[in-house]
Amino acid sequence: MLKLYDNAFAPSPRRVRMFLAEKGLVFETVPVDIAAGETASADFLAVNPLGELPVLELEDGTRLRESLAICRYLEAMHPEPALLGRDDRERAEIESIVLQLMFRVYVPTTHAFRHTHKFWAGRIAQVPEYGALARQSVLSEWQRLDGDLSSREFLAGDRFSFADIVGYTTLEFGKPSGIRLQEDQANLRRWHAAIAARPSAKA
Amino acid sequence: MLKLYDNAFAPSPRRVRMFLAEKGLVFETVPVDIAAGETASADFLAVNPLGELPVLELEDGTRLRESLAICRYLEAMHPEPALLGRDDRERAEIESIVLQLMFRVYVPTTHAFRHTHKFWAGRIAQVPEYGALARQSVLSEWQRLDGDLSSREFLAGDRFSFADIVGYTTLEFGKPSGIRLQEDQANLRRWHAAIAARPSAKA
Repeated sequence: MLKLYDNAFAPSPRRVRMFLAEKGLVFETVPVDIAAGETASADFLAVNPLGELPVLELEDGTRLRESLAICRYLEAMHPEPALLGRDDRERAEIESIVLQLMFRVYVPTTHAFRHTHKFWAGRIAQVPEYGALARQSVLSEWQRLDGDLSSREFLAGDRFSFADIVGYTTLEFGKPSGIRLQEDQANLRRWHAAIAARPSAKA
Repeated sequence: MLKLYDNAFAPSPRRVRMFLAEKGLVFETVPVDIAAGETASADFLAVNPLGELPVLELEDGTRLRESLAICRYLEAMHPEPALLGRDDRERAEIESIVLQLMFRVYVPTTHAFRHTHKFWAGRIAQVPEYGALARQSVLSEWQRLDGDLSSREFLAGDRFSFADIVGYTTLEFGKPSGIRLQEDQANLRRWHAAIAARPSAKA
């Protein structure tokens, strides 16, 4: 059976859990407690020398890393429902939206958390002034995406895709850093409610 | 003919130029002067509303964004030589290395540049203390990669791949921020010399 090295609160393994749920794939999880330092333990570093979650272990023991690479592999093995595009043009369009979300929204969301949240105080060198800038850039990106969603149902067009998984899990992960939808972002609120209502959002 | 909206000094379009050169594909370029503010001009925002390079325009006028998505599309159209993997497992392995390079090396390299270099002074809010941390994390990553290269010829294994293009262009882009190979990084120096000797490195 597929085995996911997982953490309930981290956004990257959650992307893979949602993807697996949308594909209807059965998997077991190995919980790894980031707060207790387990990602830096010798046991886990033997699984992933970079100390990062998620890791997906295939039935033959092969271990895949990086959520985007893991989901692409799963899509190749289980093409339906297509979450990364049905042809090469659509794949390029969805991937470009996914990467924009990762670099323009996800990365600064993690930086806002790392540089301003008390969870990281004493664990890393925090620069709150930079964290505040990162948070502001994330809020600007969500405002832009609210505009984009005025003319499309989902983040990458008129069909649910991996872009929505990346967007939804990133938005949820912003909450501890005070990153939330604004009252007047009607398009984003409509989109968020639609994604939250999918069974995979509970994964 | 393929048309690349390009900039000679930016690392993201350079990735695509190297990829096109390795594939032996002919293309024309449309130079966009970032320093003169052209990526924020109305003309360019009509090409890419995000104001980012590169953009690849196909012969039918379709415009693709994001260097990783562009290269994957080109690989699908022109599979040989394979730069993203020859089967799904190898594709997952190469993609995971590419993503690690992007998130752990490329992103902090750009942040070191943005937060410490005089080019950005007055253009953005700089936080030099954060830029110094970003630079330090990049130097640590290159030290780790020097170790990885003791047991492999290239960044993703024993064959040249897109991971080497991402690594090489990222390392070159570190120079203005004082990010360079160290004297004792013999594996990295061997790898860097091998990539620099490829004709595509001049692209």
